Amino acid sequence: MSRDERYILIALGGNAFQSKGDKGTPEDYWRNAYRAAETIVRIVKEGYRVVVTHGNGPQVGIIMEWMERSKDKIPPLTMDIAGAMTQGWLGYLLAQSISNVLLREGVKDSVKGVVAVVNQVEVRRDDPAWSNPTKYVGSWYTEEEAKKLAAEKGWIFKPDPRGGYRRVVPSPNPFNNVEVSAIKRLVDDGWIVVASGGGGIPVVRNDDGSLQGVEAVIDKDLAGEVLATSLGVGTFVILTDVDGVYLNFGKPDQKKLDVVMVSELEKYYKEGHFAPGSMGPKVLAAIRFIKNGGKRAMIGHLYNGYEVIKGRSGTTVLPI
Amino acid sequence: MSRDERYILIALGGNAFQSKGDKGTPEDYWRNAYRAAETIVRIVKEGYRVVVTHGNGPQVGIIMEWMERSKDKIPPLTMDIAGAMTQGWLGYLLAQSISNVLLREGVKDSVKGVVAVVNQVEVRRDDPAWSNPTKYVGSWYTEEEAKKLAAEKGWIFKPDPRGGYRRVVPSPNPFNNVEVSAIKRLVDDGWIVVASGGGGIPVVRNDDGSLQGVEAVIDKDLAGEVLATSLGVGTFVILTDVDGVYLNFGKPDQKKLDVVMVSELEKYYKEGHFAPGSMGPKVLAAIRFIKNGGKRAMIGHLYNGYEVIKGRSGTTVLPI
Repeated sequence: MSRDERYILIALGGNAFQSKGDKGTPEDYWRNAYRAAETIVRIVKEGYRVVVTHGNGPQVGIIMEWMERSKDKIPPLTMDIAGAMTQGWLGYLLAQSISNVLLREGVKDSVKGVVAVVNQVEVRRDDPAWSNPTKYVGSWYTEEEAKKLAAEKGWIFKPDPRGGYRRVVPSPNPFNNVEVSAIKRLVDDGWIVVASGGGGIPVVRNDDGSLQGVEAVIDKDLAGEVLATSLGVGTFVILTDVDGVYLNFGKPDQKKLDVVMVSELEKYYKEGHFAPGSMGPKVLAAIRFIKNGGKRAMIGHLYNGYEVIKGRSGTTVLPI
Repeated sequence: MSRDERYILIALGGNAFQSKGDKGTPEDYWRNAYRAAETIVRIVKEGYRVVVTHGNGPQVGIIMEWMERSKDKIPPLTMDIAGAMTQGWLGYLLAQSISNVLLREGVKDSVKGVVAVVNQVEVRRDDPAWSNPTKYVGSWYTEEEAKKLAAEKGWIFKPDPRGGYRRVVPSPNPFNNVEVSAIKRLVDDGWIVVASGGGGIPVVRNDDGSLQGVEAVIDKDLAGEVLATSLGVGTFVILTDVDGVYLNFGKPDQKKLDVVMVSELEKYYKEGHFAPGSMGPKVLAAIRFIKNGGKRAMIGHLYNGYEVIKGRSGTTVLPI
């Protein structure tokens, strides 16, 4: 696959599955998935060949909470397995809703179908993230509850900016998508592939070359960049719940970037304009994609996904 | 793909993930998955091209129990979504353990890797199973608890032969594997594919052609047959926790079938030799596979999987 701008990897944020005020019923999940599917199909109809990835933060949190609340009876499983479960769950929602929207829109010849794959992503054993967990997962606790759980389980808690204490887990840097050549084969064959869900199932490689799951959650945009770069797609689009990248975000002098050169964006990134765990990894993923040879990276609001691709909304990052 | 006997679909029973006495810890799951992986790799080393499917009964039960026990806080999801989660969970266990054993055994050239796909399987809206639920899922309850839940939720309970009452759900007949052409593409390309997990995510087709999940659990051997037949594999192997097919099973005059012609096996099946929900669907799956043009179907013990393929253990079903 060449660096063709019409090959596109779309990274969907949490609002592909949850909107404000949702209770998290099956109906809520489907309604949101269909909304994301409509954006994706509109892009497909423009002639793009599409690969889709998605986050899983709230859903991996739900599974971990299920495990925690039932641990008197059912032994809790590990975070890599919980991540794998979210790939089945969310991959199914996306595959079915995208294929139903393709059918409704009469898209036949250009797409064979939609398929989600269970997908491992490799991180390093010596990643500095292991000693500095930053990614919030699971429920909110009081300080007292958090201290008790920390003592019992060795978990690490941090105060959440939204209030309360939450468990934090390492978020090591992804560098290899294990099943990339299967994904490439399917994309080349005309399938829309859902892959690297939730940043991928986190694995490390042992000295003998074998893979092993680890207790971590990988950032889905950074993992999406690894997949986008190794597939060789030309365009990488991050769709989230803000309408683009801002300097001085939330301050009186905030300024939205419409089109920005990667060198300029990297300067802003180093100046600390973008919040870690929020816009930070999205901007970093876009920078890496362009520096690794990508043609265009876009960051914008999911509900304006089509306009983002067209460059009429969001932020476009270009080479040089 | 021709009806080549060296293309094989292996259906793994529950003992691929759980052994007697297991508590269901992550270590238990991995130990069992590695044991199954060793059997599969031994078959791969014989030159077979392998597709793998697996059951999910206990695991879908665990997820439904998690949901039930946390319903005060987290809205329970539907059974199709729970099934999709088990495909992620168990597909990951199998993909990682098989690929690690392939590496350890030095299998390189013949296999590109192992990949699990999220896979929907179509059933019919007018299947008689909808009005006669038979498949046990989830926890065991007392008669009183079962009556209460039945009144509250409209669930149907039946006494379990192992004691207590359990929810029963419909197990409609599978007839179409939705993602089969993606699976075929990957198999032809040299991948070991894990597919149709737990009998597949159950879906029906609406009048407009769209797919929709339904509250059911499909028998994994019957769904495995649908996949095996539509892939055109020559050999279909069902590995379980008994060492073959018996007439008068459990009676003093029980007799194991070593090699049996499909016409004879069908006669025994119609005579009611095989327990519904147990050996019955396995025998039916083998019969269908051969009648649909398959060359050989085998049923035997997982731990003797290699000998089963070689015809030295288990039961072999042949055409005519």
